[in-house]
Amino acid sequence: MASYNVAPLSKLIEQFERLPGIGSKTAQRLAYFVLNMPKEQATEFSTAILDAHEKIRYCEVCCNFSEGELCPVCKSSTRDKSVICVVETPRDAIALENTHEYDGVYHVLHGAISPLNGIGPDQLYIKQLLSRLSDDTVKEIIMATNPTVEGEATAMYISRLLKPMGIKVTRLAYGIPVGGDLEYADEVTLARALEGRNEL
Amino acid sequence: MASYNVAPLSKLIEQFERLPGIGSKTAQRLAYFVLNMPKEQATEFSTAILDAHEKIRYCEVCCNFSEGELCPVCKSSTRDKSVICVVETPRDAIALENTHEYDGVYHVLHGAISPLNGIGPDQLYIKQLLSRLSDDTVKEIIMATNPTVEGEATAMYISRLLKPMGIKVTRLAYGIPVGGDLEYADEVTLARALEGRNEL
Repeated sequence: MASYNVAPLSKLIEQFERLPGIGSKTAQRLAYFVLNMPKEQATEFSTAILDAHEKIRYCEVCCNFSEGELCPVCKSSTRDKSVICVVETPRDAIALENTHEYDGVYHVLHGAISPLNGIGPDQLYIKQLLSRLSDDTVKEIIMATNPTVEGEATAMYISRLLKPMGIKVTRLAYGIPVGGDLEYADEVTLARALEGRNEL
Repeated sequence: MASYNVAPLSKLIEQFERLPGIGSKTAQRLAYFVLNMPKEQATEFSTAILDAHEKIRYCEVCCNFSEGELCPVCKSSTRDKSVICVVETPRDAIALENTHEYDGVYHVLHGAISPLNGIGPDQLYIKQLLSRLSDDTVKEIIMATNPTVEGEATAMYISRLLKPMGIKVTRLAYGIPVGGDLEYADEVTLARALEGRNEL
Protein backbone atom coordinates (compact mmCIF):
# COMPACT_ATOMS: atom_id res chain seq x y z
CA MET A 1 0.00 0.00 0.00
CA ALA A 2 2.76 2.36 0.94
CA SER A 3 4.44 1.71 -2.39
CA TYR A 4 2.39 4.39 -4.10
CA ASN A 5 3.17 6.96 -1.42
CA VAL A 6 6.16 9.20 -2.03
CA ALA A 7 9.20 7.95 -0.12
CA PRO A 8 9.37 10.53 2.70
CA LEU A 9 5.70 9.94 3.41
CA SER A 10 6.10 6.15 3.43
CA LYS A 11 8.93 6.55 5.87
CA LEU A 12 6.85 8.68 8.18
CA ILE A 13 4.00 6.17 7.98
CA GLU A 14 6.44 3.38 8.88
CA GLN A 15 7.60 5.35 11.88
CA PHE A 16 4.06 5.69 13.15
CA GLU A 17 3.38 2.02 12.50
CA ARG A 18 6.13 1.12 14.94
CA LEU A 19 4.27 2.75 17.79
CA PRO A 20 2.20 0.47 20.02
CA GLY A 21 -1.49 0.23 19.15
CA ILE A 22 -1.07 2.08 15.85
CA GLY A 23 -2.15 0.04 12.83
CA SER A 24 -1.39 0.84 9.22
CA LYS A 25 -4.59 2.86 8.64
CA THR A 26 -4.04 5.00 11.73
CA ALA A 27 -0.36 5.42 10.87
CA GLN A 28 -1.40 6.73 7.48
CA ARG A 29 -3.90 9.12 9.00
CA LEU A 30 -1.34 10.43 11.48
CA ALA A 31 1.36 10.83 8.84
CA TYR A 32 -0.98 12.84 6.61
CA PHE A 33 -1.96 14.94 9.59
CA VAL A 34 1.68 15.70 10.38
CA LEU A 35 2.28 16.49 6.73
CA ASN A 36 -0.55 19.00 6.77
CA MET A 37 0.68 20.67 9.96
CA PRO A 38 2.26 24.11 9.64
CA LYS A 39 6.01 23.74 9.28
CA GLU A 40 6.81 25.11 12.74
CA GLN A 41 4.49 22.62 14.44
CA ALA A 42 6.19 19.76 12.64
CA THR A 43 9.55 21.10 13.76
CA GLU A 44 8.32 21.29 17.34
CA PHE A 45 7.15 17.69 17.16
CA SER A 46 10.43 16.55 15.69
CA THR A 47 12.41 18.44 18.31
CA ALA A 48 10.28 17.13 21.17
CA ILE A 49 11.25 13.57 20.23
CA LEU A 50 14.95 14.35 20.24
CA ASP A 51 14.73 16.48 23.37
CA ALA A 52 12.99 13.75 25.30
CA HIS A 53 15.85 11.46 24.44
CA GLU A 54 18.62 13.90 25.09
CA LYS A 55 17.42 15.71 28.18
CA ILE A 56 15.83 12.94 30.21
CA ARG A 57 17.88 10.66 32.43
CA TYR A 58 17.29 8.64 35.57
CA CYS A 59 17.17 10.31 38.99
CA GLU A 60 20.26 9.24 40.91
CA VAL A 61 18.20 8.32 43.94
CA CYS A 62 14.88 6.87 42.80
CA CYS A 63 15.66 6.00 39.15
CA ASN A 64 12.56 7.86 37.96
CA PHE A 65 12.86 10.08 34.88
CA SER A 66 14.58 13.34 35.66
CA GLU A 67 16.04 16.34 33.93
CA GLY A 68 18.70 16.93 36.58
CA GLU A 69 20.61 14.67 38.97
CA LEU A 70 17.57 14.47 41.22
CA CYS A 71 13.91 14.26 40.23
CA PRO A 72 11.46 16.84 41.63
CA VAL A 73 10.15 14.39 44.23
CA CYS A 74 13.58 13.42 45.59
CA LYS A 75 14.64 17.06 45.55
CA SER A 76 11.55 18.25 47.43
CA SER A 77 11.99 19.04 51.12
CA THR A 78 8.33 18.44 51.89
CA ARG A 79 8.28 14.79 50.86
CA ASP A 80 8.57 12.16 53.57
CA LYS A 81 11.85 10.36 52.89
CA SER A 82 11.06 7.59 55.37
CA VAL A 83 8.52 5.93 53.06
CA ILE A 84 9.50 4.56 49.67
CA CYS A 85 6.86 3.43 47.24
CA VAL A 86 8.31 0.88 44.81
CA VAL A 87 6.74 0.94 41.33
CA GLU A 88 7.47 -0.80 38.06
CA THR A 89 7.45 2.24 35.76
CA PRO A 90 7.51 6.05 35.86
CA ARG A 91 3.88 5.96 34.71
CA ASP A 92 2.89 4.09 37.85
CA ALA A 93 4.54 6.81 39.92
CA ILE A 94 2.50 9.41 38.04
CA ALA A 95 -0.69 7.44 38.67
CA LEU A 96 0.08 7.46 42.40
CA GLU A 97 1.00 11.17 42.32
CA ASN A 98 -2.38 11.86 40.80
CA THR A 99 -4.14 10.51 43.89
CA HIS A 100 -2.61 13.44 45.85
CA GLU A 101 -2.66 11.05 48.82
CA TYR A 102 0.99 10.08 48.95
CA ASP A 103 3.74 12.30 50.26
CA GLY A 104 6.58 9.78 50.49
CA VAL A 105 9.16 9.15 47.79
CA TYR A 106 9.35 6.56 45.00
CA HIS A 107 11.63 3.96 43.61
CA VAL A 108 11.23 2.94 39.99
CA LEU A 109 12.30 -0.60 39.11
CA HIS A 110 11.87 -0.12 35.34
CA GLY A 111 10.16 -3.47 34.92
CA ALA A 112 9.14 -6.57 36.82
CA ILE A 113 10.70 -9.98 37.21
CA SER A 114 9.54 -12.05 34.27
CA PRO A 115 11.54 -15.23 33.60
CA LEU A 116 9.50 -15.89 30.45
CA ASN A 117 10.75 -12.63 28.97
CA GLY A 118 14.25 -13.18 30.29
CA ILE A 119 13.96 -10.42 32.89
CA GLY A 120 15.57 -11.37 36.18
CA PRO A 121 16.18 -9.27 39.32
CA ASP A 122 19.53 -8.11 37.91
CA GLN A 123 17.85 -6.29 35.04
CA LEU A 124 15.78 -4.24 37.47
CA TYR A 125 16.90 -1.29 39.59
CA ILE A 126 16.79 -3.31 42.82
CA LYS A 127 20.42 -2.74 43.81
CA GLN A 128 19.76 1.01 43.74
CA LEU A 129 16.81 0.45 46.07
CA LEU A 130 18.93 -1.52 48.54
CA SER A 131 21.61 1.17 48.54
CA ARG A 132 18.99 3.67 49.71
CA LEU A 133 18.49 1.63 52.89
CA SER A 134 22.04 1.88 54.21
CA ASP A 135 21.18 4.48 56.86
CA ASP A 136 18.09 4.33 59.10
CA THR A 137 15.99 6.96 57.30
CA VAL A 138 13.63 4.53 55.62
CA LYS A 139 10.93 3.06 57.84
CA GLU A 140 8.53 1.59 55.31
CA ILE A 141 8.60 0.25 51.79
CA ILE A 142 5.27 0.12 49.98
CA MET A 143 5.32 -2.45 47.18
CA ALA A 144 3.18 -0.91 44.45
CA THR A 145 4.07 -3.23 41.60
CA ASN A 146 1.23 -4.29 39.33
CA PRO A 147 -1.33 -6.85 40.50
CA THR A 148 -0.05 -9.30 37.87
CA VAL A 149 1.94 -12.50 38.19
CA GLU A 150 5.14 -10.59 37.39
CA GLY A 151 4.37 -7.68 39.71
CA GLU A 152 3.45 -10.12 42.47
CA ALA A 153 6.65 -12.09 42.03
CA THR A 154 8.69 -8.89 42.07
CA ALA A 155 6.98 -7.70 45.26
CA MET A 156 7.61 -11.08 46.91
CA TYR A 157 11.23 -11.14 45.82
CA ILE A 158 11.98 -7.67 47.11
CA SER A 159 10.08 -8.13 50.36
CA ARG A 160 12.16 -11.24 51.09
CA LEU A 161 15.32 -9.21 50.56
CA LEU A 162 14.11 -6.46 52.86
CA LYS A 163 12.49 -8.38 55.69
CA PRO A 164 15.83 -9.49 57.23
CA MET A 165 16.85 -5.82 57.33
CA GLY A 166 13.98 -5.14 59.72
CA ILE A 167 12.17 -2.76 57.38
CA LYS A 168 8.38 -2.76 57.27
CA VAL A 169 7.24 -3.89 53.84
CA THR A 170 3.63 -3.34 52.81
CA ARG A 171 1.61 -4.05 49.68
CA LEU A 172 -1.20 -2.06 48.05
CA ALA A 173 -4.63 -3.37 49.07
CA TYR A 174 -6.55 -5.61 46.71
CA GLY A 175 -10.27 -5.19 46.37
CA ILE A 176 -13.10 -4.11 44.15
CA PRO A 177 -12.34 -0.97 42.17
CA VAL A 178 -14.30 2.12 43.20
CA GLY A 179 -17.18 2.74 40.82
CA GLY A 180 -16.96 -0.85 39.61
CA ASP A 181 -19.78 -3.34 39.53
CA LEU A 182 -19.71 -6.43 41.77
CA GLU A 183 -21.36 -8.42 39.03
CA TYR A 184 -18.43 -7.84 36.71
CA ALA A 185 -15.61 -8.22 39.22
CA ASP A 186 -13.59 -11.38 38.66
CA GLU A 187 -13.64 -14.06 41.36
CA VAL A 188 -10.05 -13.52 42.46
CA THR A 189 -10.57 -9.81 43.01
CA LEU A 190 -13.83 -10.47 44.82
CA ALA A 191 -12.21 -13.12 47.02
CA ARG A 192 -9.42 -10.66 47.88
CA ALA A 193 -11.99 -7.95 48.63
CA LEU A 194 -13.79 -10.31 51.01
CA GLU A 195 -10.54 -11.38 52.63
CA GLY A 196 -9.45 -7.78 53.17
CA ARG A 197 -12.82 -6.49 54.36
CA ASN A 198 -12.76 -3.64 56.86
CA GLU A 199 -15.05 -2.86 59.74
CA LEU A 200 -17.41 0.07 59.21
CA MET B 1 -1.29 15.04 35.30
CA ALA B 2 1.58 16.08 33.13
CA SER B 3 2.81 18.40 35.83
CA TYR B 4 4.68 15.59 37.51
CA ASN B 5 6.33 14.54 34.28
CA VAL B 6 9.69 16.06 33.49
CA ALA B 7 9.37 18.93 31.03
CA PRO B 8 10.73 17.30 27.84
CA LEU B 9 8.41 14.35 28.40
CA SER B 10 5.39 16.60 28.96
CA LYS B 11 6.22 18.38 25.74
CA LEU B 12 6.39 15.12 23.83
CA ILE B 13 3.08 14.01 25.33
CA GLU B 14 1.53 17.32 24.25
CA GLN B 15 2.79 16.78 20.73
CA PHE B 16 1.13 13.38 20.54
CA GLU B 17 -2.08 14.78 22.04
CA ARG B 18 -2.37 17.13 19.07
CA LEU B 19 -2.70 14.21 16.66
CA PRO B 20 -6.22 13.21 15.62
CA GLY B 21 -7.78 10.38 17.61
CA ILE B 22 -5.01 10.37 20.22
CA GLY B 23 -6.26 11.04 23.76
CA SER B 24 -4.16 11.91 26.76
CA LYS B 25 -3.67 8.30 27.90
CA THR B 26 -2.57 7.15 24.47
CA ALA B 27 -0.34 10.19 24.07
CA GLN B 28 1.35 9.27 27.33
CA ARG B 29 1.80 5.67 26.24
CA LEU B 30 3.27 6.73 22.90
CA ALA B 31 5.60 9.29 24.46
CA TYR B 32 6.95 6.69 26.90
CA PHE B 33 7.39 4.28 24.05
CA VAL B 34 9.38 6.83 22.06
CA LEU B 35 11.44 7.60 25.14
CA ASN B 36 12.30 3.92 25.51
CA MET B 37 13.27 3.55 21.87
CA PRO B 38 16.95 3.21 21.04
CA LYS B 39 18.42 6.62 20.32
CA GLU B 40 18.86 6.01 16.60
CA GLN B 41 15.22 4.98 16.16
CA ALA B 42 14.09 8.19 17.83
CA THR B 43 16.37 10.15 15.53
CA GLU B 44 14.89 8.38 12.51
CA PHE B 45 11.39 9.23 13.69
CA SER B 46 12.31 12.84 14.27
CA THR B 47 13.98 13.09 10.88
CA ALA B 48 11.05 11.43 9.10
CA ILE B 49 8.76 14.21 10.32
CA LEU B 50 11.03 16.96 9.04
CA ASP B 51 11.79 15.12 5.80
CA ALA B 52 8.13 14.68 5.01
CA HIS B 53 7.71 18.41 5.35
CA GLU B 54 10.80 19.37 3.45
CA LYS B 55 10.85 16.87 0.64
CA ILE B 56 7.21 16.55 -0.29
CA ARG B 57 5.52 19.00 -2.63
CA TYR B 58 2.61 18.88 -5.05
CA CYS B 59 2.98 17.28 -8.49
CA GLU B 60 2.86 20.04 -11.08
CA VAL B 61 0.30 18.17 -13.12
CA CYS B 62 -2.06 16.34 -10.78
CA CYS B 63 -1.36 18.15 -7.48
CA ASN B 64 -0.82 14.83 -5.69
CA PHE B 65 2.10 14.57 -3.24
CA SER B 66 5.38 14.25 -5.06
CA GLU B 67 9.08 14.30 -4.39
CA GLY B 68 9.97 15.71 -7.78
CA GLU B 69 8.21 17.99 -10.26
CA LEU B 70 6.04 15.08 -11.36
CA CYS B 71 4.54 12.31 -9.25
CA PRO B 72 5.26 8.68 -10.21
CA VAL B 73 1.83 8.30 -11.85
CA CYS B 74 2.13 11.39 -14.04
CA LYS B 75 5.72 10.46 -14.91
CA SER B 76 4.81 6.89 -15.86
CA SER B 77 4.60 6.14 -19.61
CA THR B 78 2.24 3.20 -19.06
CA ARG B 79 -0.58 5.21 -17.52
CA ASP B 80 -3.46 6.24 -19.73
CA LYS B 81 -3.32 10.04 -19.84
CA SER B 82 -6.76 10.28 -21.47
CA VAL B 83 -8.62 9.43 -18.25
CA ILE B 84 -8.37 11.63 -15.17
CA CYS B 85 -9.80 10.44 -11.89
CA VAL B 86 -10.60 13.42 -9.66
CA VAL B 87 -10.24 12.76 -5.93
CA GLU B 88 -10.44 14.90 -2.81
CA THR B 89 -7.21 13.81 -1.13
CA PRO B 90 -3.98 11.92 -1.87
CA ARG B 91 -5.28 9.12 0.37
CA ASP B 92 -8.24 8.62 -1.95
CA ALA B 93 -5.81 8.22 -4.83
CA ILE B 94 -3.94 5.58 -2.85
CA ALA B 95 -7.19 3.75 -2.12
CA LEU B 96 -7.92 3.67 -5.87
CA GLU B 97 -4.36 2.59 -6.67
CA ASN B 98 -4.83 -0.31 -4.29
CA THR B 99 -7.64 -1.70 -6.42
CA HIS B 100 -5.07 -2.30 -9.21
CA GLU B 101 -7.96 -1.72 -11.59
CA TYR B 102 -7.22 1.81 -12.68
CA ASP B 103 -4.50 2.76 -15.13
CA GLY B 104 -5.45 6.36 -15.83
CA VAL B 105 -4.06 9.38 -14.02
CA TYR B 106 -5.37 11.40 -11.07
CA HIS B 107 -6.18 14.92 -10.06
CA VAL B 108 -6.17 15.80 -6.38
CA LEU B 109 -8.46 18.66 -5.33
CA HIS B 110 -7.15 18.79 -1.74
CA GLY B 111 -10.62 19.11 -0.28
CA ALA B 112 -14.24 19.44 -1.24
CA ILE B 113 -16.57 22.39 -1.56
CA SER B 114 -18.00 23.04 1.88
CA PRO B 115 -19.60 26.44 2.39
CA LEU B 116 -20.15 25.68 6.09
CA ASN B 117 -16.40 25.36 6.57
CA GLY B 118 -15.72 28.32 4.33
CA ILE B 119 -14.26 26.20 1.54
CA GLY B 120 -15.32 27.39 -1.89
CA PRO B 121 -14.19 26.25 -5.35
CA ASP B 122 -11.32 28.76 -5.25
CA GLN B 123 -9.66 26.97 -2.34
CA LEU B 124 -9.54 23.74 -4.30
CA TYR B 125 -7.17 22.79 -7.12
CA ILE B 126 -9.85 23.07 -9.78
CA LYS B 127 -8.05 25.64 -11.93
CA GLN B 128 -5.16 23.21 -12.26
CA LEU B 129 -7.61 20.55 -13.44
CA LEU B 130 -9.06 22.84 -16.10
CA SER B 131 -5.60 23.74 -17.36
CA ARG B 132 -4.98 20.05 -18.05
CA LEU B 133 -7.85 20.03 -20.54
CA SER B 134 -6.44 22.63 -22.95
CA ASP B 135 -5.40 20.06 -25.55
CA ASP B 136 -7.53 17.11 -26.65
CA THR B 137 -5.70 14.36 -24.73
CA VAL B 138 -8.32 13.94 -22.04
CA LYS B 139 -11.39 11.96 -23.03
CA GLU B 140 -12.96 11.19 -19.67
CA ILE B 141 -13.04 12.63 -16.18
CA ILE B 142 -14.09 10.24 -13.42
CA MET B 143 -15.44 12.11 -10.41
CA ALA B 144 -14.29 10.07 -7.43
CA THR B 145 -15.04 12.56 -4.68
CA ASN B 146 -16.52 11.15 -1.48
CA PRO B 147 -20.16 10.05 -1.37
CA THR B 148 -20.93 12.86 1.06
CA VAL B 149 -22.86 16.10 0.65
CA GLU B 150 -19.59 17.97 0.11
CA GLY B 151 -18.15 15.41 -2.29
CA GLU B 152 -21.41 15.32 -4.20
CA ALA B 153 -21.56 19.11 -4.49
CA THR B 154 -17.96 19.20 -5.68
CA ALA B 155 -18.63 16.54 -8.30
CA MET B 156 -21.68 18.44 -9.52
CA TYR B 157 -19.83 21.75 -9.62
CA ILE B 158 -16.93 20.38 -11.62
CA SER B 159 -19.09 18.37 -13.98
CA ARG B 160 -21.04 21.54 -14.82
CA LEU B 161 -17.78 23.28 -15.64
CA LEU B 162 -16.64 20.42 -17.84
CA LYS B 163 -19.79 19.46 -19.70
CA PRO B 164 -19.71 22.53 -22.01
CA MET B 165 -16.17 21.52 -22.98
CA GLY B 166 -17.54 18.28 -24.42
CA ILE B 167 -15.64 16.03 -22.06
CA LYS B 168 -17.27 12.87 -20.78
CA VAL B 169 -17.73 13.15 -17.03
CA THR B 170 -18.55 10.03 -15.01
CA ARG B 171 -19.16 9.32 -11.34
CA LEU B 172 -18.23 6.27 -9.26
CA ALA B 173 -21.14 3.83 -8.95
CA TYR B 174 -23.21 3.81 -5.80
CA GLY B 175 -24.42 0.53 -4.38
CA ILE B 176 -24.13 -1.97 -1.59
CA PRO B 177 -20.55 -2.52 -0.47
CA VAL B 178 -19.09 -5.93 -1.30
CA GLY B 179 -19.18 -8.20 1.73
CA GLY B 180 -21.81 -5.99 3.33
CA ASP B 181 -25.16 -7.08 4.65
CA LEU B 182 -28.37 -5.89 3.00
CA GLU B 183 -30.03 -5.73 6.38
CA TYR B 184 -27.57 -3.12 7.57
CA ALA B 185 -27.37 -1.05 4.40
CA ASP B 186 -28.98 2.37 4.81
CA GLU B 187 -32.03 3.17 2.68
CA VAL B 188 -30.31 5.71 0.46
CA THR B 189 -27.53 3.27 -0.45
CA LEU B 190 -30.05 0.51 -1.06
CA ALA B 191 -32.21 2.78 -3.24
CA ARG B 192 -29.12 3.72 -5.27
CA ALA B 193 -28.17 0.05 -5.58
CA LEU B 194 -31.64 -0.75 -6.93
CA GLU B 195 -31.55 2.20 -9.29
CA GLY B 196 -28.16 1.18 -10.67
CA ARG B 197 -28.92 -2.53 -10.95
CA ASN B 198 -27.15 -4.42 -13.74
CA GLU B 199 -28.31 -7.33 -15.86
CA LEU B 200 -26.72 -10.68 -15.01
